[in-house]
Amino acid sequence: MVNDSKHFLVKELGTPSFPSPLNLSKRDGDQLANYVPNDERVVLNTSLKEICNEIEQGHVPLSFERAGPREKIFFDPSKCKVGIVTCGGLCPGINDVIRALVMQLSWWYRVKTIYGFRFGYLGMVKESKLQPLLLDADLVSDIHEKGGSILGSSRGPQDIERMVDYLMDYKINILFCIGGDGTLRGTQEITDEILKRGLPISVIGIPKTIDNDIQYIEKTFGFETAFSEAVEAIRAAHVEAKGGQYGIGMVKLMGRQSGYIAANAALASQDVNFCLIPECSFDLEGPNGLYHHLRTRLENRGHAVIVVAEGVGQKYVQTNAKDASGNTKLGDIGTFLRDDIKRYFQSVDFPANIRYIDPSYIIRSAKTLPSDSIYCSQLAQNAVHAGMAGKTGMLVGIWNNQFTHVPIKIAIEQRKVLDIESEFWLNVIESTGQPRMMQNNSPA
Amino acid sequence: MVNDSKHFLVKELGTPSFPSPLNLSKRDGDQLANYVPNDERVVLNTSLKEICNEIEQGHVPLSFERAGPREKIFFDPSKCKVGIVTCGGLCPGINDVIRALVMQLSWWYRVKTIYGFRFGYLGMVKESKLQPLLLDADLVSDIHEKGGSILGSSRGPQDIERMVDYLMDYKINILFCIGGDGTLRGTQEITDEILKRGLPISVIGIPKTIDNDIQYIEKTFGFETAFSEAVEAIRAAHVEAKGGQYGIGMVKLMGRQSGYIAANAALASQDVNFCLIPECSFDLEGPNGLYHHLRTRLENRGHAVIVVAEGVGQKYVQTNAKDASGNTKLGDIGTFLRDDIKRYFQSVDFPANIRYIDPSYIIRSAKTLPSDSIYCSQLAQNAVHAGMAGKTGMLVGIWNNQFTHVPIKIAIEQRKVLDIESEFWLNVIESTGQPRMMQNNSPA
Amino acid sequence: MVNDSKHFLVKELGTPSFPSPLNLSKRDGDQLANYVPNDERVVLNTSLKEICNEIEQGHVPLSFERAGPREKIFFDPSKCKVGIVTCGGLCPGINDVIRALVMQLSWWYRVKTIYGFRFGYLGMVKESKLQPLLLDADLVSDIHEKGGSILGSSRGPQDIERMVDYLMDYKINILFCIGGDGTLRGTQEITDEILKRGLPISVIGIPKTIDNDIQYIEKTFGFETAFSEAVEAIRAAHVEAKGGQYGIGMVKLMGRQSGYIAANAALASQDVNFCLIPECSFDLEGPNGLYHHLRTRLENRGHAVIVVAEGVGQKYVQTNAKDASGNTKLGDIGTFLRDDIKRYFQSVDFPANIRYIDPSYIIRSAKTLPSDSIYCSQLAQNAVHAGMAGKTGMLVGIWNNQFTHVPIKIAIEQRKVLDIESEFWLNVIESTGQPRMMQNNSPA
Amino acid sequence: MVNDSKHFLVKELGTPSFPSPLNLSKRDGDQLANYVPNDERVVLNTSLKEICNEIEQGHVPLSFERAGPREKIFFDPSKCKVGIVTCGGLCPGINDVIRALVMQLSWWYRVKTIYGFRFGYLGMVKESKLQPLLLDADLVSDIHEKGGSILGSSRGPQDIERMVDYLMDYKINILFCIGGDGTLRGTQEITDEILKRGLPISVIGIPKTIDNDIQYIEKTFGFETAFSEAVEAIRAAHVEAKGGQYGIGMVKLMGRQSGYIAANAALASQDVNFCLIPECSFDLEGPNGLYHHLRTRLENRGHAVIVVAEGVGQKYVQTNAKDASGNTKLGDIGTFLRDDIKRYFQSVDFPANIRYIDPSYIIRSAKTLPSDSIYCSQLAQNAVHAGMAGKTGMLVGIWNNQFTHVPIKIAIEQRKVLDIESEFWLNVIESTGQPRMMQNNSPA
Repeated sequence: MVNDSKHFLVKELGTPSFPSPLNLSKRDGDQLANYVPNDERVVLNTSLKEICNEIEQGHVPLSFERAGPREKIFFDPSKCKVGIVTCGGLCPGINDVIRALVMQLSWWYRVKTIYGFRFGYLGMVKESKLQPLLLDADLVSDIHEKGGSILGSSRGPQDIERMVDYLMDYKINILFCIGGDGTLRGTQEITDEILKRGLPISVIGIPKTIDNDIQYIEKTFGFETAFSEAVEAIRAAHVEAKGGQYGIGMVKLMGRQSGYIAANAALASQDVNFCLIPECSFDLEGPNGLYHHLRTRLENRGHAVIVVAEGVGQKYVQTNAKDASGNTKLGDIGTFLRDDIKRYFQSVDFPANIRYIDPSYIIRSAKTLPSDSIYCSQLAQNAVHAGMAGKTGMLVGIWNNQFTHVPIKIAIEQRKVLDIESEFWLNVIESTGQPRMMQNNSPA
Repeated sequence: MVNDSKHFLVKELGTPSFPSPLNLSKRDGDQLANYVPNDERVVLNTSLKEICNEIEQGHVPLSFERAGPREKIFFDPSKCKVGIVTCGGLCPGINDVIRALVMQLSWWYRVKTIYGFRFGYLGMVKESKLQPLLLDADLVSDIHEKGGSILGSSRGPQDIERMVDYLMDYKINILFCIGGDGTLRGTQEITDEILKRGLPISVIGIPKTIDNDIQYIEKTFGFETAFSEAVEAIRAAHVEAKGGQYGIGMVKLMGRQSGYIAANAALASQDVNFCLIPECSFDLEGPNGLYHHLRTRLENRGHAVIVVAEGVGQKYVQTNAKDASGNTKLGDIGTFLRDDIKRYFQSVDFPANIRYIDPSYIIRSAKTLPSDSIYCSQLAQNAVHAGMAGKTGMLVGIWNNQFTHVPIKIAIEQRKVLDIESEFWLNVIESTGQPRMMQNNSPA
Repeated sequence: MVNDSKHFLVKELGTPSFPSPLNLSKRDGDQLANYVPNDERVVLNTSLKEICNEIEQGHVPLSFERAGPREKIFFDPSKCKVGIVTCGGLCPGINDVIRALVMQLSWWYRVKTIYGFRFGYLGMVKESKLQPLLLDADLVSDIHEKGGSILGSSRGPQDIERMVDYLMDYKINILFCIGGDGTLRGTQEITDEILKRGLPISVIGIPKTIDNDIQYIEKTFGFETAFSEAVEAIRAAHVEAKGGQYGIGMVKLMGRQSGYIAANAALASQDVNFCLIPECSFDLEGPNGLYHHLRTRLENRGHAVIVVAEGVGQKYVQTNAKDASGNTKLGDIGTFLRDDIKRYFQSVDFPANIRYIDPSYIIRSAKTLPSDSIYCSQLAQNAVHAGMAGKTGMLVGIWNNQFTHVPIKIAIEQRKVLDIESEFWLNVIESTGQPRMMQNNSPA
Repeated sequence: MVNDSKHFLVKELGTPSFPSPLNLSKRDGDQLANYVPNDERVVLNTSLKEICNEIEQGHVPLSFERAGPREKIFFDPSKCKVGIVTCGGLCPGINDVIRALVMQLSWWYRVKTIYGFRFGYLGMVKESKLQPLLLDADLVSDIHEKGGSILGSSRGPQDIERMVDYLMDYKINILFCIGGDGTLRGTQEITDEILKRGLPISVIGIPKTIDNDIQYIEKTFGFETAFSEAVEAIRAAHVEAKGGQYGIGMVKLMGRQSGYIAANAALASQDVNFCLIPECSFDLEGPNGLYHHLRTRLENRGHAVIVVAEGVGQKYVQTNAKDASGNTKLGDIGTFLRDDIKRYFQSVDFPANIRYIDPSYIIRSAKTLPSDSIYCSQLAQNAVHAGMAGKTGMLVGIWNNQFTHVPIKIAIEQRKVLDIESEFWLNVIESTGQPRMMQNNSPA
């Protein structure tokens, strides 16, 4: 009965034996927050019907370990040394996370030594000669007011063994890795190497991906800020589209394999007529292709706004290059579509005008919105609780609005993508008015 | 086994018999969204342990009916007439909700007649001589870009029978009430009168309260925008506090019985030192009172920021007046504290300076943030699905990130308040650094 | 003595004979604004020394006619018909100008017929079959809250005679042309054709150029909003630059021949290290070239921010194409520099990272800032005063903070460029810390 | 002939003898900015007619000394010590000014010692035991991103002799005073005491008043940011006014004796119907009183927006108290009007609703807008040039868009007020549609 949930079991370095310095409560009614028992779990699926089905069939419903402060912790705070590293592309909220990690560690757990490794994994190998920053409450107190990462970041892996050597050199007990898919693969390997060496080092990941595409994590930090910024670019495209006869405004947004930013920004702006995401294939030409529908829109309404996620239509712009993180370099579908739409309308002698906007880094370097700030703080606080309790090889996440622990291994098995059968995507379709499918050999 | 969940059963006007015009799917794998079966339910509690306990004891876990488009609907869209009314104080997102109701009704259900009643319940009695607006897609297409309500609002009840007469005069089939606690009591009474008369009129509430204090609704629309705006006022108070020797910046925020805005804004801003909410009593004087701790903070750090929810400390400022909605008029704790803090520091001859900010309506009349816009649209779309399906006496809500149907009766039994034993409040305490309790006869 | 100022004399259609309906005053002390006498003039040069020199030499100092309401006007408001056209690229504030023209004409001069021609000069030839909009106070009351132009715009000339025919068809008395350099050449030609035909049609230009490059106009509307928006893009570039080891953030901004946007945005942001404008040549390679100084900056400070105006360095990216307005199409210096900087640092084996941002239309489609809104209103109001007074072939402008009348002919003789010997440019240089000259054969 | 301009002659400590370290040019054409000769002056009045009249009558037109870098300076930069103090209420841009002072002094003049006195004049007397901050480029590099003053401020005078003693103790050569009317009176007294003692200390004022009410200064820094922020409060009032039947939205803005903020914010927002400023008296009751016109507006349009400057209608709310700066404490016209408007409409049985917004400190603690940032930098740079050149007892100002030197004595003789016979006020009247006069015994 237990083995269904085995995939979500989180590793621990050992039995926690130190009392938590948080001085929380173990009972209700005393107006004081309680410790979270280690066996508290949050169900994956909230459908009453499916839960009952599972149980009738003798299964325990799948669930995640609940995050939160533990009564007993694994590390002696007075001797604990911590490292923080930020990897991959920037994303709103990194500094909020760093700040909250440092505040929670130093104010509440009384940890005295916190290193900030510089420029991602690069700063975790001796050869790079990058000195870590020593972080404390004063140094980080205002950093949440700025975008970016005060530690800097970089793409690409470093030698796993050297990084573990480095952690040993600095006598690190807990490593917090703030990073995305590529980073987390490295985090998993670091964890494995640490376990192989039998070291008492906890490795906690805080998932960072502006694309919101990590499995079993309802929402990544910075995502809301990012799509909210994107709405501004769409507004500009809408103004431009309406500013000319048969004007088309097109915006390229982030989204390598998942269209969350494009879909959310389109839904929030209400001005988008075509939202193109990687999860939903489409044809350009033909009677049910994009261009035909675009032309019809222009004829009827005089203007149109298109949002395209960067990962869309790679068959038209394929490259074989890879970036330093090992991701395939995407071809630029934005400029391709801009030019090809021009070509199409010239070929049919229709006087359309296209204006193309690529807001690029403007979106990811924004200051976090207040709700995202709160979320960043909470993720970081729960990451600290997990690390101090001796958890390892895990991510802090959120599921059904509860903070959870998710084994990294499971989380990186595949990317989260937008379900095009969901009501959310239906909402987008309803909002844009675009055809449900724009493929010539599919039912419209 | 079923009777545990009886409180959350939603009334229906009858058996839906018309096919939905939405043309959705009933199966997975066809790249098309599915109708939501009427027996889909979302569990209230996501704790694996508690769910298993319930079931072991022979109970069905409590759950809400899941919202969403139904395959069969109750009203014939071609003949359906709809009314929309907005009541009570303004709140970010009302226009987003109105817009999405109209868009969903007219574009997707092909409803032809949508009335917008003017100025709340006042516009639903013949005597007020207020003509309803006829709403259509063109009229509402840009209204989400503005704060407020294009329909206008008012406080206070009107005669229930006259309002139902009015609905009959206009041959209304579905009434959407956008309003808060007071409004929803009226909505419930309208529903009861309709059921008493045996009329085929569905009444759907869309909960609107900037205080986020409606039971069984995870988050009300506009709330995120409101507390995000409040962060700006706190920023100003922080600047003022630091601008003078021993400067105190104090901000009064909304929150009659619930401190959600104050707590979220304080947590997001990271600059607050004392967050005072109605859920958490405190003393002003004495060795563990606010003034003592405030003075200590000033001595140590030179400045302090206080956020106070309007419903706090009513014992000091009690009035017996009531507003038109029947709410007790709150005494003004903000100006009381401003003056009393001055008095206190003069009495102890300490040169503190206090600057007081009451952002009042600035917060509630803001344009919605993008994520709130999306939420408003989704609430409205699900309200339309519910109304067309013949549900009545219910609210659309959200729970565990799923849209739900909640009987109004249950939702208004009591206000939702912030649990001061929650991790969320712990986070606020940790962020402000204020004592867990500021009462002289309680354990600090 | 008079002939020195002949270049700035404004043409008039005839002697104004109708009393102004504005009911203003002709004397001080009655708490009522005064009419502006037609011989009020504003000196070009405010240097006491130079004014005295001129006068000593028997010259009248150069001056502009002062704008403002005249006591007598040329057109009978009750019969006057007005046309408005917006041409060329979008710019913040166009809708503010349209709104203020309509408000001033209809509320204060009681003009009853105001046409808005669609999509620039295209909407002023019968062949385009574009019907003009009839504009009134209700229709324009909220348009200033949106970017863009409600009339739409287009580039490129139309046949002058046909446009004048069209004005005759619609019995237009005053034509307001909102447009930039190219447009104003057309405006001048329309004026000439009207004068040739002896028609009583006044032509008033309102200079629109986001580049702020019109001679004898201190500041064009929308310019402040535009460079303020650009500051956001620079902020993003700065975040990106600091986010990586040896990070370079580069932003391309508008500015075909004049670097005003780049220079103002750089000065306002304080984060720019190299500001490249068309007025100031520079070398890329060599001991005093950009790349050398960029490398030095990276070595010393670890990151760098570059702002480049689009008109810079055209020798590297020359094209021979022209756009519809007849402007030479600029080669894309932004992507050229991005790629060439990469190439350079690879060639010298230095691990720099460049992130490139092209905010493009985001900047020009923004809602106007409050001070720009005021300026737009004032320009429009003065344009109406001038048109009603029968002035023609002129622009409304501002000089020494006074609104003025400037003959179009003079204004378009050459572009206004930033004086690199000015204190303003010195301020930019001081703020960026860049070398005064980056040319190998010039004194650094 | 010269004596007409004597009022604007600026005092100097002596003949400058050190070469400026700025390495600027003395001739045109070398692509390098020039030093400003000490006899460059900017005419006060730009009217050609009035200039010619003056000269014909044998007078030299009034003029200000032009600011800018001088070829010879009075202080030896290597030995020069500088103090900076900020006094009075906060205002947007103070940190921008401090930053630019420090940058200009340390980077360009190579001054090594810059003290920031804490909390206004309070920090310039030994008795307060406040240690000055030592300022350098690193410390100030990011301060412009925050509102307020990093030095803190205070109201009220200190003993002049003790302050001069303090300057002597710290061997200060140049004191920069950032402050308003009250402060500048102190600045003048400090200057007089210094001259009396024959000390080589230059005193340079940088006028700071959010009310923009300093004579001979076209615009004070922060003013544009302040009224732009105020537009947001007006927007909220407009939303509230339209949100209820016969809704009135009222906003109180700063403006003790001058209505610049109210008038500019009203003009920029376009949503104001009544703008009440201290310069323009009005009656409340009677056939031409505010209440009558307000009621007419409500009857015709259903809502109204009022902006009231704090200094308005003091006869209704008179107090005799004074604040620490010696300003008469204003009675609160905002809450008076709110209550009295309620009373009036109840007395005439008209169902109006009033919502009152007092944004107070929110407006003055805002981060500066980009154009204001630039202005702050330029003011500070010119202040440094003036101080290094040995000028004293003067303000840096701007006139006809040129930076100028203005003797403090002249500038504080009277407040600058808005001329209600100006075209600017006419624009406001036209925009609001309010009567030109609302007084019963005056011509409407």
